[in-house]
Amino acid sequence: MALIYGRNPVIEAINSGTTINKIYIQKSSKEFSDIYRLVKEKKIVIVETEKSKLDKMCNNRNSQGIVASITDFKYCDIEDIIELAKSRNEAPFILILDKIEDPHNLGAIIRTAECLGVHGVIIQKRNACQITDTVEKVAAGACSYMKVARVANITESIKKLKDYGLWIYGLDMQGSSKIYETKLEGAIGIVVGNEGTGISRLVKENCDFMINIPMTGKINSLNASVSAAISIYEIVRQKNLFKTKNEV
Amino acid sequence: MALIYGRNPVIEAINSGTTINKIYIQKSSKEFSDIYRLVKEKKIVIVETEKSKLDKMCNNRNSQGIVASITDFKYCDIEDIIELAKSRNEAPFILILDKIEDPHNLGAIIRTAECLGVHGVIIQKRNACQITDTVEKVAAGACSYMKVARVANITESIKKLKDYGLWIYGLDMQGSSKIYETKLEGAIGIVVGNEGTGISRLVKENCDFMINIPMTGKINSLNASVSAAISIYEIVRQKNLFKTKNEV
Repeated sequence: MALIYGRNPVIEAINSGTTINKIYIQKSSKEFSDIYRLVKEKKIVIVETEKSKLDKMCNNRNSQGIVASITDFKYCDIEDIIELAKSRNEAPFILILDKIEDPHNLGAIIRTAECLGVHGVIIQKRNACQITDTVEKVAAGACSYMKVARVANITESIKKLKDYGLWIYGLDMQGSSKIYETKLEGAIGIVVGNEGTGISRLVKENCDFMINIPMTGKINSLNASVSAAISIYEIVRQKNLFKTKNEV
Repeated sequence: MALIYGRNPVIEAINSGTTINKIYIQKSSKEFSDIYRLVKEKKIVIVETEKSKLDKMCNNRNSQGIVASITDFKYCDIEDIIELAKSRNEAPFILILDKIEDPHNLGAIIRTAECLGVHGVIIQKRNACQITDTVEKVAAGACSYMKVARVANITESIKKLKDYGLWIYGLDMQGSSKIYETKLEGAIGIVVGNEGTGISRLVKENCDFMINIPMTGKINSLNASVSAAISIYEIVRQKNLFKTKNEV
């Protein structure tokens, strides 16, 4: 993680599309109304703090009352994920996250995806958790190996994946077929929805199939990272892609 | 969660085996050396704090410098779990946790177990996470429905389960057979080990079979709650116990 400080550098970073985790702004300062507006549009988190703390963050240089923490994580394009699958001579296997918000869930999902051989994860730029320090920590090193594409629009990405020949399965409690009774073969994209609201309507409409993980308990709600793990496992089991390290 | 305060009530609670989450003791007081000794034996967490705060915790009554927070969670016996399975006319399906330490993992495991129809969870009294407030919160309500037995010795419990006719499967990266190539039918106990060290040697020796979840990634280490979720799912899939609420 790196820091950018000073009024103009931070504005430039915002406008250039750099991934900003948080912006720290001097408390009760009225000089930043333009930045507040800009930041609100981009849905970046703002933390108000003392000027002295801001200066300390930049090794006692003058922060000008504003510091942005940016991520070093290098996102990729959907094409890179497809290429990776090709280079391994495997049918693409992609996880599409429709607005996962909790960094612990995102980190846990990336960790499981990496362990079980998913080629890449797609997340949305807005209204969704990005790859932050917390995500990297929870993912236990998996972010260094997992391809993550950040897209403006999940629906458009699903259309693109279909053009590449993928079948798109949406995971939903109301899904019409049970996951273990569904044939999950070939090039596959699986969509996991938001923790509270699930997969959004438009994304659902663009899925080829909606599937469910049957539940028999009383609380009837699996955590998003657990749902993702079970579906990744089931797909891998069916694809019989499993190759233990011992065998390689 | 309830609080007990005063020197003798707390000592009694410790000796009676009440589940104590934490003991709060007055800072720099030398009157509690006997309690420190007792508590150290039982591996209860001690928090040192100001006398005024302790009194505040007990609604401004005299805490005598010591407060214990105890859990309201009602543990059950292994027999209760077996009975539950019988009453549902199902083969017992029990999760045995060999020293899971992280309350987030324990909570997540209980949530998944409840959703997927496990009859009960067995945890160890010492060196393992108990049902605390955090566990109940993470479990998202599942602790109210899941039977949890707290035992002194996991190995002895496994022997007892075998007497009830269960086959015991241990989950381990070095397990000799792949989980999806293993027949998982009938009365089953599955053992999930500690986050860092896995299943302990003695417990392993008492498992009937050691199985693994094959991994193909670079980091090669699933989170304990994810491993538990995948194995619960695989057992339920094979047992074909799944009955969606809609079908009931």
